Amino acid sequence: MSTRAAVLFANAAFYEAFRSRDLATMDQLWAREAPVACIHPGWRALTGREEVMESWEGILNNPDSPEITCRNAEAFVAGEAAYVVCYEVVRRSVLVATNLFVTEEGQWRLIHHQAGPCDLPLDALDEAPEPGPMQ
Amino acid sequence: MSTRAAVLFANAAFYEAFRSRDLATMDQLWAREAPVACIHPGWRALTGREEVMESWEGILNNPDSPEITCRNAEAFVAGEAAYVVCYEVVRRSVLVATNLFVTEEGQWRLIHHQAGPCDLPLDALDEAPEPGPMQ
Repeated sequence: MSTRAAVLFANAAFYEAFRSRDLATMDQLWAREAPVACIHPGWRALTGREEVMESWEGILNNPDSPEITCRNAEAFVAGEAAYVVCYEVVRRSVLVATNLFVTEEGQWRLIHHQAGPCDLPLDALDEAPEPGPMQ
Repeated sequence: MSTRAAVLFANAAFYEAFRSRDLATMDQLWAREAPVACIHPGWRALTGREEVMESWEGILNNPDSPEITCRNAEAFVAGEAAYVVCYEVVRRSVLVATNLFVTEEGQWRLIHHQAGPCDLPLDALDEAPEPGPMQ
Protein backbone atom coordinates (compact mmCIF):
# COMPACT_ATOMS: atom_id res chain seq x y z
CA MET A 1 0.00 0.00 0.00
CA SER A 2 1.42 3.42 -0.87
CA THR A 3 1.86 5.97 1.90
CA ARG A 4 -0.98 8.09 0.57
CA ALA A 5 -3.26 5.06 0.40
CA ALA A 6 -2.36 4.18 4.00
CA VAL A 7 -3.19 7.72 5.11
CA LEU A 8 -6.50 7.64 3.24
CA PHE A 9 -7.25 4.30 4.86
CA ALA A 10 -6.67 5.82 8.33
CA ASN A 11 -8.86 8.77 7.34
CA ALA A 12 -11.65 6.42 6.21
CA ALA A 13 -11.35 4.51 9.50
CA PHE A 14 -11.81 7.81 11.35
CA TYR A 15 -15.05 8.58 9.49
CA GLU A 16 -16.26 5.01 9.87
CA ALA A 17 -15.71 5.23 13.66
CA PHE A 18 -17.49 8.60 13.61
CA ARG A 19 -20.43 7.27 11.53
CA SER A 20 -20.82 4.06 13.54
CA ARG A 21 -20.39 5.80 16.94
CA ASP A 22 -17.45 3.48 17.76
CA LEU A 23 -15.69 5.27 20.62
CA ALA A 24 -13.14 2.47 21.22
CA THR A 25 -11.92 2.62 17.63
CA MET A 26 -11.99 6.42 17.70
CA ASP A 27 -9.74 6.29 20.76
CA GLN A 28 -7.31 3.92 19.01
CA LEU A 29 -7.11 6.22 16.00
CA TRP A 30 -5.79 9.21 17.98
CA ALA A 31 -2.09 9.54 18.80
CA ARG A 32 -0.81 8.64 22.23
CA GLU A 33 2.63 10.28 22.11
CA ALA A 34 2.28 13.26 19.78
CA PRO A 35 0.34 16.28 21.07
CA VAL A 36 -3.27 16.30 19.87
CA ALA A 37 -5.86 19.01 19.30
CA CYS A 38 -9.29 19.20 17.69
CA ILE A 39 -11.55 21.94 16.33
CA HIS A 40 -15.15 20.83 15.90
CA PRO A 41 -17.33 23.07 13.68
CA GLY A 42 -17.88 26.40 15.43
CA TRP A 43 -16.12 25.31 18.63
CA ARG A 44 -13.04 26.74 20.25
CA ALA A 45 -9.91 24.60 19.87
CA LEU A 46 -9.65 21.62 22.21
CA THR A 47 -6.12 20.66 23.20
CA GLY A 48 -4.68 17.58 24.87
CA ARG A 49 -5.79 13.98 24.53
CA GLU A 50 -8.14 14.04 27.51
CA GLU A 51 -10.12 17.07 26.33
CA VAL A 52 -10.22 15.83 22.73
CA MET A 53 -11.42 12.32 23.64
CA GLU A 54 -14.04 13.73 26.03
CA SER A 55 -15.46 15.69 23.12
CA TRP A 56 -15.65 12.56 20.95
CA GLU A 57 -17.31 10.67 23.77
CA GLY A 58 -19.95 13.41 23.97
CA ILE A 59 -20.49 13.50 20.22
CA LEU A 60 -20.55 9.74 19.62
CA ASN A 61 -22.82 9.09 22.61
CA ASN A 62 -25.27 11.83 21.67
CA PRO A 63 -28.32 10.31 19.93
CA ASP A 64 -28.97 13.68 18.27
CA SER A 65 -25.57 13.71 16.54
CA PRO A 66 -26.25 13.60 12.81
CA GLU A 67 -25.01 11.05 10.31
CA ILE A 68 -21.77 11.99 8.61
CA THR A 69 -20.12 10.87 5.39
CA CYS A 70 -16.68 11.78 4.07
CA ARG A 71 -16.28 12.72 0.41
CA ASN A 72 -13.46 13.60 -1.97
CA ALA A 73 -10.64 12.89 0.47
CA GLU A 74 -7.18 13.85 -0.75
CA ALA A 75 -3.97 12.96 1.13
CA PHE A 76 -0.74 14.96 1.24
CA VAL A 77 2.42 13.41 2.65
CA ALA A 78 5.23 15.57 4.03
CA GLY A 79 7.99 13.45 5.54
CA GLU A 80 6.80 11.81 8.74
CA ALA A 81 3.51 13.69 8.78
CA ALA A 82 0.54 13.64 6.47
CA TYR A 83 -2.71 15.50 6.17
CA VAL A 84 -5.99 14.84 4.48
CA VAL A 85 -8.32 17.48 3.11
CA CYS A 86 -11.86 16.23 2.62
CA TYR A 87 -15.51 17.20 2.74
CA GLU A 88 -18.06 16.07 5.30
CA VAL A 89 -21.73 15.80 4.46
CA VAL A 90 -23.95 16.35 7.49
CA ARG A 91 -27.71 16.76 7.02
CA ARG A 92 -27.07 17.64 3.35
CA SER A 93 -24.78 20.49 4.43
CA VAL A 94 -21.17 20.47 3.31
CA LEU A 95 -18.29 20.98 5.72
CA VAL A 96 -14.62 21.05 4.80
CA ALA A 97 -12.10 19.31 7.04
CA THR A 98 -8.42 18.88 7.69
CA ASN A 99 -7.16 15.70 9.36
CA LEU A 100 -3.52 15.59 10.41
CA PHE A 101 -1.67 12.32 10.98
CA VAL A 102 1.69 11.05 12.19
CA THR A 103 2.95 7.48 12.46
CA GLU A 104 3.12 5.85 15.88
CA GLU A 105 3.92 2.15 16.27
CA GLY A 106 3.68 1.71 12.51
CA GLN A 107 0.17 3.14 12.34
CA TRP A 108 -1.04 6.49 10.99
CA ARG A 109 -2.73 8.21 13.91
CA LEU A 110 -4.66 11.46 14.11
CA ILE A 111 -3.08 14.38 15.90
CA HIS A 112 -5.46 17.12 14.76
CA HIS A 113 -8.86 17.61 13.16
CA GLN A 114 -10.57 20.80 12.08
CA ALA A 115 -13.93 21.01 10.34
CA GLY A 116 -15.90 24.08 9.35
CA PRO A 117 -18.60 25.26 6.95
CA CYS A 118 -17.99 25.31 3.22
CA ASP A 119 -19.85 27.00 0.38
CA LEU A 120 -19.42 24.05 -2.00
CA PRO A 121 -22.79 22.67 -3.13
CA LEU A 122 -23.51 19.05 -2.32
CA ASP A 123 -23.77 18.10 -5.98
CA ALA A 124 -20.20 19.27 -6.62
CA LEU A 125 -18.93 16.33 -4.57
CA ASP A 126 -18.42 12.75 -5.70
CA GLU A 127 -21.16 10.25 -5.00
CA ALA A 128 -21.37 8.90 -1.46
CA PRO A 129 -19.37 5.69 -1.06
CA GLU A 130 -20.72 2.57 0.57
CA PRO A 131 -20.08 2.67 4.32
CA GLY A 132 -16.95 0.84 5.36
CA PRO A 133 -13.28 1.51 6.11
CA MET A 134 -12.32 1.56 2.44
CA GLN A 135 -14.84 4.28 1.57
CA MET B 1 15.16 29.41 20.37
CA SER B 2 13.08 26.35 21.23
CA THR B 3 11.32 24.49 18.44
CA ARG B 4 7.93 25.68 19.64
CA ALA B 5 9.15 29.28 19.77
CA ALA B 6 10.51 28.95 16.23
CA VAL B 7 7.15 27.63 15.01
CA LEU B 8 5.30 30.46 16.76
CA PHE B 9 7.73 32.91 15.17
CA ALA B 10 6.89 31.50 11.69
CA ASN B 11 3.19 31.70 12.57
CA ALA B 12 3.55 35.34 13.64
CA ALA B 13 5.40 36.10 10.41
CA PHE B 14 2.48 34.59 8.48
CA TYR B 15 -0.03 36.89 10.19
CA GLU B 16 2.25 39.89 9.83
CA ALA B 17 2.52 39.23 6.08
CA PHE B 18 -1.27 38.82 5.99
CA ARG B 19 -1.86 42.04 7.98
CA SER B 20 0.63 44.13 6.02
CA ARG B 21 -0.43 42.72 2.60
CA ASP B 22 3.14 41.59 1.93
CA LEU B 23 2.76 39.07 -0.89
CA ALA B 24 6.52 38.51 -1.36
CA THR B 25 6.95 37.49 2.29
CA MET B 26 3.77 35.41 2.14
CA ASP B 27 5.24 33.55 -0.83
CA GLN B 28 8.49 32.91 1.05
CA LEU B 29 6.59 31.51 4.03
CA TRP B 30 4.92 28.70 2.04
CA ALA B 31 6.74 25.44 1.35
CA ARG B 32 8.34 24.82 -2.02
CA GLU B 33 8.89 21.08 -1.82
CA ALA B 34 6.15 19.71 0.44
CA PRO B 35 2.61 19.60 -0.98
CA VAL B 36 0.53 22.62 0.08
CA ALA B 37 -3.19 23.24 0.52
CA CYS B 38 -5.32 26.01 2.01
CA ILE B 39 -8.89 26.38 3.23
CA HIS B 40 -10.00 29.99 3.56
CA PRO B 41 -13.14 30.59 5.67
CA GLY B 42 -16.15 29.15 3.85
CA TRP B 43 -14.17 28.26 0.73
CA ARG B 44 -13.57 24.85 -0.81
CA ALA B 45 -10.06 23.48 -0.28
CA LEU B 46 -7.37 24.88 -2.57
CA THR B 47 -4.56 22.47 -3.42
CA GLY B 48 -1.15 22.97 -4.96
CA ARG B 49 1.19 25.91 -4.59
CA GLU B 50 -0.05 27.78 -7.68
CA GLU B 51 -3.70 27.73 -6.61
CA VAL B 52 -2.86 28.59 -2.99
CA MET B 53 -0.61 31.53 -3.87
CA GLU B 54 -3.15 32.86 -6.39
CA SER B 55 -5.67 32.98 -3.56
CA TRP B 56 -3.26 34.94 -1.35
CA GLU B 57 -2.53 37.33 -4.19
CA GLY B 58 -6.26 37.97 -4.54
CA ILE B 59 -6.77 38.44 -0.81
CA LEU B 60 -3.71 40.61 -0.15
CA ASN B 61 -4.33 42.80 -3.20
CA ASN B 62 -8.01 43.31 -2.41
CA PRO B 63 -8.50 46.73 -0.75
CA ASP B 64 -11.71 45.39 0.82
CA SER B 65 -9.91 42.61 2.68
CA PRO B 66 -10.34 43.29 6.39
CA GLU B 67 -7.62 43.74 8.99
CA ILE B 68 -6.64 40.56 10.78
CA THR B 69 -4.90 39.90 14.08
CA CYS B 70 -3.77 36.56 15.51
CA ARG B 71 -4.47 35.77 19.16
CA ASN B 72 -3.69 32.96 21.63
CA ALA B 73 -1.44 30.99 19.29
CA GLU B 74 -0.35 27.61 20.61
CA ALA B 75 2.25 25.42 18.87
CA PHE B 76 2.40 21.62 18.83
CA VAL B 77 5.50 19.84 17.56
CA ALA B 78 5.33 16.28 16.24
CA GLY B 79 8.68 15.15 14.86
CA GLU B 80 9.50 17.00 11.66
CA ALA B 81 6.11 18.66 11.47
CA ALA B 82 4.39 21.19 13.68
CA TYR B 83 1.03 22.85 13.82
CA VAL B 84 -0.32 25.98 15.41
CA VAL B 85 -3.85 26.45 16.64
CA CYS B 86 -4.83 30.10 17.03
CA TYR B 87 -7.66 32.58 16.77
CA GLU B 88 -8.06 35.27 14.14
CA VAL B 89 -9.92 38.48 14.86
CA VAL B 90 -11.49 39.95 11.74
CA ARG B 91 -13.97 42.85 12.05
CA ARG B 92 -14.45 41.91 15.72
CA SER B 93 -15.50 38.39 14.69
CA VAL B 94 -13.50 35.43 15.95
CA LEU B 95 -12.24 32.70 13.62
CA VAL B 96 -10.27 29.64 14.68
CA ALA B 97 -7.35 28.48 12.56
CA THR B 98 -4.91 25.66 12.04
CA ASN B 99 -1.52 26.36 10.48
CA LEU B 100 0.65 23.39 9.55
CA PHE B 101 4.42 23.69 9.12
CA VAL B 102 7.38 21.60 8.04
CA THR B 103 11.05 22.52 7.88
CA GLU B 104 12.62 23.25 4.51
CA GLU B 105 16.14 24.65 4.21
CA GLY B 106 16.24 25.15 7.97
CA GLN B 107 13.08 27.29 8.00
CA TRP B 108 9.59 26.42 9.23
CA ARG B 109 7.33 26.81 6.22
CA LEU B 110 3.56 26.58 5.89
CA ILE B 111 2.09 23.60 4.10
CA HIS B 112 -1.55 24.06 5.10
CA HIS B 113 -3.91 26.65 6.58
CA GLN B 114 -7.55 26.29 7.55
CA ALA B 115 -9.67 28.98 9.16
CA GLY B 116 -13.35 28.92 10.03
CA PRO B 117 -15.92 30.54 12.31
CA CYS B 118 -15.74 30.07 16.06
CA ASP B 119 -18.28 30.72 18.79
CA LEU B 120 -15.68 32.07 21.24
CA PRO B 121 -16.46 35.66 22.29
CA LEU B 122 -13.84 38.28 21.51
CA ASP B 123 -13.32 39.10 25.18
CA ALA B 124 -12.32 35.50 25.92
CA LEU B 125 -9.09 36.05 23.97
CA ASP B 126 -5.88 37.64 25.17
CA GLU B 127 -5.31 41.30 24.42
CA ALA B 128 -4.18 42.14 20.90
CA PRO B 129 -0.39 42.28 20.64
CA GLU B 130 1.51 45.11 19.02
CA PRO B 131 1.92 44.48 15.29
CA GLY B 132 5.22 42.85 14.37
CA PRO B 133 6.72 39.42 13.72
CA MET B 134 7.03 38.68 17.45
CA GLN B 135 3.32 39.33 18.10
